[in-house]
Amino acid sequence: MKIDIISVLPELLDSPLSHSIMKRAQEKGLLEVQVHPLRKWAINQHGQIDDYQYGGGAGMVMMCEPLANAIEELQKDGAYDEIIYMTPDGGTFNQRTANGLSLKDRLLIICGHYKGIDQRIRDKYVTLEISIGDFVLSGGELAAAVVIDAIGRILPGVLNDETSALFDSFQDNLLAPPVYTRPAEFMGMKIPEILLSGDPKKIDDWRYEQSIIRTKERRPDLLTDSDL
Amino acid sequence: MKIDIISVLPELLDSPLSHSIMKRAQEKGLLEVQVHPLRKWAINQHGQIDDYQYGGGAGMVMMCEPLANAIEELQKDGAYDEIIYMTPDGGTFNQRTANGLSLKDRLLIICGHYKGIDQRIRDKYVTLEISIGDFVLSGGELAAAVVIDAIGRILPGVLNDETSALFDSFQDNLLAPPVYTRPAEFMGMKIPEILLSGDPKKIDDWRYEQSIIRTKERRPDLLTDSDL
Repeated sequence: MKIDIISVLPELLDSPLSHSIMKRAQEKGLLEVQVHPLRKWAINQHGQIDDYQYGGGAGMVMMCEPLANAIEELQKDGAYDEIIYMTPDGGTFNQRTANGLSLKDRLLIICGHYKGIDQRIRDKYVTLEISIGDFVLSGGELAAAVVIDAIGRILPGVLNDETSALFDSFQDNLLAPPVYTRPAEFMGMKIPEILLSGDPKKIDDWRYEQSIIRTKERRPDLLTDSDL
Repeated sequence: MKIDIISVLPELLDSPLSHSIMKRAQEKGLLEVQVHPLRKWAINQHGQIDDYQYGGGAGMVMMCEPLANAIEELQKDGAYDEIIYMTPDGGTFNQRTANGLSLKDRLLIICGHYKGIDQRIRDKYVTLEISIGDFVLSGGELAAAVVIDAIGRILPGVLNDETSALFDSFQDNLLAPPVYTRPAEFMGMKIPEILLSGDPKKIDDWRYEQSIIRTKERRPDLLTDSDL
């Protein structure tokens, strides 16, 4: 998978893209992420990429021309499966979106800044608008990093133990059960006895039950009748 | 505001915490963020901080002892208003949570990794569990960066123009209206004429109407009867 990112703050992505899962995915050749500084396509020698918004009001808007030129030039290396714009008014990102995007070959992600990008770029080029949640960030870079991490870790071969991702929260619409490790007693708190039973069937049942309980308590919206 | 972070991958946070709004907030003395490597409190000279989970299964669990020692030591500098654990099964982060947290003085954020942290640490120390959305990341670092960015940008004095944040999506349960900048015509696409009218009242009305339309189309769940 190849992911291109267009950003006015490419350096913000340096460390998230060079550690952990992202590092491993890229080293294994399973994922290539390239960050393109939007200023490369600035409209003048001052590096201008934004301007005041029509109609007045605080906050700058990212201009059409640099973005259009960036997209057109990057597309020459091959069409994108999706041209994604990270924006708080996009569709809410979830594990299903992550699973779907992990099957694509080429993605372009545009990171917004300031008041966002000119609406005409959204109308003409963008095929998918993603929000990572109902909150506002100072730019789309962290949101893009989140999306790439969620996609990257489920690419086949990235995680060492593929079964591990299957028991994550959300893969089956259930939250994960509580986990414990040594020591069996810590500051007077003991682990649930069943985990010491050595009976894999009983332990699986207990974990499933705990997942259901936790989901009912914390996120009843995730449960449909069929899960009960 | 002071935010301490406990992480097994502190270097992942280098660039998100040193650019943009985060840089500005810290330079202005409005926010101090310190990342503490959990390995400082490892249980042995091999730097061990995790172990196999009781009951079997793939994935390691972050141990009680290093986390408890880290929390106890960091607390000596002053009590935390919240000890936050970033986890997919936490409460879903939104602008209201961000607004609330921006009023606190001292926060501690624990970033999970692998299968997460031992449940007993959650039971004993954690006061707030936050998920940034219904998806799984390879660790809590990016989620913590997202939360800190969302909080940091609304601290009074961080944004240059405070009115700017007020017109963000979600501050009034409405998505932001479309924005446009020069040129007025780009590749045959013209901006809405009203934005050239020079009539601030009409423009405000149009923006509000567009916010309502966009929210109805994309996120009807955000609208309550009182907004209609």
